[in-house]
Amino acid sequence: MSRPGLRALIAGAGLSGSLLAVYLARRGYDVEVFEGRADPRAVAGGDDRSINLGMSARGIRALRRVELWDALAPRLVPMRGRMIHRPDGTLVFQAYGSRPDEILHSIRRNELNAFLVDRAEKHAGVRFHFGRRCVSLDRDTAALTVADVLTGERRTHRGDFVVGADGAFSTVRRRMHHGLPVDFQQTFIDWGYKELTIPPHADGSARTPIEALHLWPSDNGLVVGHPNIDNSITCTLLLPLAAERGTPSFATLPDSAAATAYARATFPDLPGLIPDFAAQYDAHPVAHLVTVRTGAWHHRDRVVLVGDACHAVTPFYGQGMNSAFEDCLVLDECLSRHPDDRAAAFALFQALRRPHTDVLADLSMRNFVELRDRVRSPLHLARARADLLLNRMFPRLWRPLYAMVSHSTVPYGDALRRARRQDAVLAVTATAALTGAAWATAGFARRRSFRGNR
Amino acid sequence: MSRPGLRALIAGAGLSGSLLAVYLARRGYDVEVFEGRADPRAVAGGDDRSINLGMSARGIRALRRVELWDALAPRLVPMRGRMIHRPDGTLVFQAYGSRPDEILHSIRRNELNAFLVDRAEKHAGVRFHFGRRCVSLDRDTAALTVADVLTGERRTHRGDFVVGADGAFSTVRRRMHHGLPVDFQQTFIDWGYKELTIPPHADGSARTPIEALHLWPSDNGLVVGHPNIDNSITCTLLLPLAAERGTPSFATLPDSAAATAYARATFPDLPGLIPDFAAQYDAHPVAHLVTVRTGAWHHRDRVVLVGDACHAVTPFYGQGMNSAFEDCLVLDECLSRHPDDRAAAFALFQALRRPHTDVLADLSMRNFVELRDRVRSPLHLARARADLLLNRMFPRLWRPLYAMVSHSTVPYGDALRRARRQDAVLAVTATAALTGAAWATAGFARRRSFRGNR
Repeated sequence: MSRPGLRALIAGAGLSGSLLAVYLARRGYDVEVFEGRADPRAVAGGDDRSINLGMSARGIRALRRVELWDALAPRLVPMRGRMIHRPDGTLVFQAYGSRPDEILHSIRRNELNAFLVDRAEKHAGVRFHFGRRCVSLDRDTAALTVADVLTGERRTHRGDFVVGADGAFSTVRRRMHHGLPVDFQQTFIDWGYKELTIPPHADGSARTPIEALHLWPSDNGLVVGHPNIDNSITCTLLLPLAAERGTPSFATLPDSAAATAYARATFPDLPGLIPDFAAQYDAHPVAHLVTVRTGAWHHRDRVVLVGDACHAVTPFYGQGMNSAFEDCLVLDECLSRHPDDRAAAFALFQALRRPHTDVLADLSMRNFVELRDRVRSPLHLARARADLLLNRMFPRLWRPLYAMVSHSTVPYGDALRRARRQDAVLAVTATAALTGAAWATAGFARRRSFRGNR
Repeated sequence: MSRPGLRALIAGAGLSGSLLAVYLARRGYDVEVFEGRADPRAVAGGDDRSINLGMSARGIRALRRVELWDALAPRLVPMRGRMIHRPDGTLVFQAYGSRPDEILHSIRRNELNAFLVDRAEKHAGVRFHFGRRCVSLDRDTAALTVADVLTGERRTHRGDFVVGADGAFSTVRRRMHHGLPVDFQQTFIDWGYKELTIPPHADGSARTPIEALHLWPSDNGLVVGHPNIDNSITCTLLLPLAAERGTPSFATLPDSAAATAYARATFPDLPGLIPDFAAQYDAHPVAHLVTVRTGAWHHRDRVVLVGDACHAVTPFYGQGMNSAFEDCLVLDECLSRHPDDRAAAFALFQALRRPHTDVLADLSMRNFVELRDRVRSPLHLARARADLLLNRMFPRLWRPLYAMVSHSTVPYGDALRRARRQDAVLAVTATAALTGAAWATAGFARRRSFRGNR
């Protein structure tokens, strides 16, 4: 209770907004959270276009810090690796890592959101206001104007500061930057996605192994499936949006007739796993994927952004929610380091986080290409196995990039630098081996490690 | 009068909006133009932060096409080259090109704007509404809502289509893209600028040679000066915005006391040319420079963007206005090619223009670095002279990039490709000369020209 009496207004009761409410409440702040959508506890399945979440080390650490992990853990499904559905119908399993804790945990976005809102609301100082959409902001006075989504009635609330946790198309961000010289970039990928669910059997049992992330790779589309606690699997069909050179796309597959034929040819076992494939395909919308980079994450001591509002990434590294949770933890640490200077805390938050979330944006795009094209290639599998082998032999010296991003809390940028050093060592070693010049290895390796330590 | 009765609403009566009004009026359209600012004919000097304009071949062609050039030409000051003010106080003149028509023409933004509004208004179908700010747009019905800047009163106008000519921070663009998956990027440079004017002597004569673009280069700031028809010179002082490593910046020069000392040390002859340097420095604001890239330039047949609204560039190639004028000409040609399908005309406009304006954005940033750091270097001067010499020797085969951008109407992207081929030939020739391997020249040159023609 270092700063009792301070009042925070949070725009957005999604994942980052509701977790941050817990963090701020534990600092003794009064917290009001405004959200245009309905209370997630009152909504059954969400909006049919939320890619499921893979909780990994960063998200778990942020939940542990505020003592939420133990209560949440039983609601998650462990994913121990990738289950590749090959075009010939066979399954291939790739473990995520060599350690028992190198697994991901799957949960529906809406379920996690409901859990967080519920826990946040148990704090005396936290109040949620659903159906209240943020429409404007006075960035200098931390005055947030919200509109009742039913009546349109507007009310302006005043706080000591405002948190923009209102997602990739953040209103707080737009109002905070209005008229200021702030860099901004939003980039959509030219693929979209559609949600399809593999239901459990009538007796409740699973139609396909549950404890894995399911992947149906192909050159003409990609399906990713996350398991749910009820033995269903939420699948995401990814396809190019526009028709080009005769390849399948959402444009060439406008309805389930065309889509069913395409799915049978491309992912042979999938239609059989989804009895109502056609009905789901026709009912669910096509959603888009965006990367957002933002120049200014805060305005003085009055406004700060977290999560997608300052760094939306594509979901292909499974780190969107994990990095948003990490934001909450880091922002809280910054507030601890500058208890009497919130502007300095916000500036430190951006300085500590942005280099790493920029790297995450790049890695997420890289992984999109890898998932789309290379997961099924023998070379990629060999490389992944080599990484695992090296990791088992030299567990402290060698960690694959994927493991550092997903199973550690090493900052993203540091993880990338370390992986590049490892790649260089591999390349030099392989070159030396191929040329038979074993003496070169030692020399190069020494030089490389010297560089790495600068 | 191919489509009589069509009604265009133009948001913005700046340079592109007022010229486009002329183009559309000549097609027989009714045109209503809405502009939040006052009528430029009623404003003396503009807003003290408009970098002067260097009219070059592209702008001239677009004005000629609608028979405006001859009336405008006498109001412009020819700039025959760059006049470099060296730190030791001496002047060095670099001609722009080897041909008599390779010159630029300087005019104040406000004067050009007033001229265009005046000419546009002579067309029966054109009406300007000043003090009317565009606040909203229904992109599907081409309904534009404008507010009276004094009373706040709003009115919605309906047209067949809306043109967003409302600048880098276009409201039309924002409303047109709202909720759509459209890429967007705005990037500010970390330098700002301040306008300073060298007045003529009391007898009306010029204080420094008039028929040139004036440059005061340095490692710690840059001044660019454009001549005016009244023998004054509008200067733009460019400096880093933030203090860094002890170098001068607008942050370290907050007022005229510090700025005068800095200017005396860095641009020794400048303070003497501006008797009221201190007063001007304190009175004029610091402005920012932005590059904007936009994914979608039109919405069906209802909305289209021109000029800064779709491709704002930094002013360092002097092509912002020229490329905006070229937009008007190209859009008009597209409307001619698709007289009965405006959506196709708009799509063609974007397809034809965007690759080239993207290149212009890159070139403008490259030129910023060159102007800042390299103009005074002997190597750069030697390179510029070599380009001019080659151009004189092989006028049809060899044209420097600068000449193609500024003195021709070759599309920007094509100009860059041709310059790269020329650079490659230079590099190969120089290498051959240096190695004495004259036989290599012919072989490489053949190969290069083959590649170039693919």
